[in-house]
Amino acid sequence: MAVSNFECIQSMKVSSKAHLFFSVNGCSRDNHKKRNCLVFASAKKSDYNPVLQSKVKTLLDSVRWDDKGLAVAIAQNVDTGAILMQGFANRDALATTISSRKATFYSRSRSALWTKGETSKNFINVQDIFLDCDRDSIIYLGKPDGPTCHTGSETCYYTSVFDVLKDQQVEGNKLAMTTLYSLESTISQRKAELAASENGKPSWTKRLLLDGNLLCSKIREEADELCRTLEENEDKSRTASEMADVLYHAMVLLGLKDVKAEEVLEILRKRFSQSGIEEKKSRLSQN
Amino acid sequence: MAVSNFECIQSMKVSSKAHLFFSVNGCSRDNHKKRNCLVFASAKKSDYNPVLQSKVKTLLDSVRWDDKGLAVAIAQNVDTGAILMQGFANRDALATTISSRKATFYSRSRSALWTKGETSKNFINVQDIFLDCDRDSIIYLGKPDGPTCHTGSETCYYTSVFDVLKDQQVEGNKLAMTTLYSLESTISQRKAELAASENGKPSWTKRLLLDGNLLCSKIREEADELCRTLEENEDKSRTASEMADVLYHAMVLLGLKDVKAEEVLEILRKRFSQSGIEEKKSRLSQN
Repeated sequence: MAVSNFECIQSMKVSSKAHLFFSVNGCSRDNHKKRNCLVFASAKKSDYNPVLQSKVKTLLDSVRWDDKGLAVAIAQNVDTGAILMQGFANRDALATTISSRKATFYSRSRSALWTKGETSKNFINVQDIFLDCDRDSIIYLGKPDGPTCHTGSETCYYTSVFDVLKDQQVEGNKLAMTTLYSLESTISQRKAELAASENGKPSWTKRLLLDGNLLCSKIREEADELCRTLEENEDKSRTASEMADVLYHAMVLLGLKDVKAEEVLEILRKRFSQSGIEEKKSRLSQN
Repeated sequence: MAVSNFECIQSMKVSSKAHLFFSVNGCSRDNHKKRNCLVFASAKKSDYNPVLQSKVKTLLDSVRWDDKGLAVAIAQNVDTGAILMQGFANRDALATTISSRKATFYSRSRSALWTKGETSKNFINVQDIFLDCDRDSIIYLGKPDGPTCHTGSETCYYTSVFDVLKDQQVEGNKLAMTTLYSLESTISQRKAELAASENGKPSWTKRLLLDGNLLCSKIREEADELCRTLEENEDKSRTASEMADVLYHAMVLLGLKDVKAEEVLEILRKRFSQSGIEEKKSRLSQN
């Protein structure tokens, strides 16, 4: 497999939000290249930035591509941390992701670039890209427009090895979830069980879901207790424990209102992320 | 490269916590195997479970190993979602991870298995393992004992492509962080700036860090507003926004008390994770 060079990129610039735009000329060899010409056709000749062009080339040169010209590329949800999918990138795929901000891979089976979402429209909108210490592994940190997996699942990782070994395939399709989302999923399960009106003594979560007054009084109480760990100079472990209580009870309220933790984190990211701060700074400096 | 079979595993069982123990016989071919014999020497002959043995073999057979007998293996922090490192696994590496619950990889450069932490003691304690839809990519979801990267960094992904292109290598070593941890990092930065007593109008975060009374009154106020979105049946977007406020202000308190979000999530996981629930159920059913 020949891995093409980055030389067809003739022109690029950095916008105020540090987005990179490339205009690609002389690149009609395959469909991908044609698409690139289309995507970036709007970049003007005046956008040409030889310094940035050279930096991108240096960066691409610094990646330790394997004997097939590839590196592992992992797409991760910037808000939840969920690993969405894993593919491979070659120089062109990484260059395209840098320029388009849409997670782009090299398909080994089709020997062609592909941008996740080009068919489904579920693009992964890349906020940042990270290289590992060896420079042979890449993270595309981004926000997916919809489910990433071709099966319709939110991520491609829905087969738990320990569930399979415990013969729990039936419950299956449990996503690889980190703690906060595992808690969210448990709360949502309890809510579904309530609807199915199962017998037996309800769990604490179910009692909270059934009794909004109890839930709200707990949230206020736990928030107060969290504050008192500061006001009364309690130790760190107490703060961590009270924060866990606040988070748990607040997550139950989110569950009751059908609000996803991801929506909350997206709001936080837009308000407080580094890029938001930089964007604000850049706006202020322009005024 | 020859990929050895799983046949040296003679004996295994599922404990009450669904941990798998293998005792490995007839496997003195290399050091790794010797080590395995040592690690699992305590498993008794009575632990032999042919059904489970057969299930593990079926599972290993179901993985789509590449032409070198490898699959991509990604280690992810179960609490924070941080991608710690990426390596490759062969059958033996995956089998060893299943049995030992320590993230184990196949080193392509040394042509040998290696368990992350065997030198540094910073093991990654695997809570679950996920396969992707294609069965050629693996997530080891685990809790690291310490920094994962050989450089001492928490994860191997500390080079931001966009920072490099913006010439911000100096600030460098920004980890690939998702929203909550990016917020945590910003708060911690504001706290450090306070110590350096910079001039100028302090940001809201800095004002909160400087004034514990203000911070606590805001936490109580925001918790109350979150509750009122339920009590007064406000719309979902209002709930999400108020939850973002609660989370932000509570994160500032954590920053002030030097408590990491990861510590809080670890507490939540231990209290509320599925395996915790299952463990409790299993305890109850035994009594």
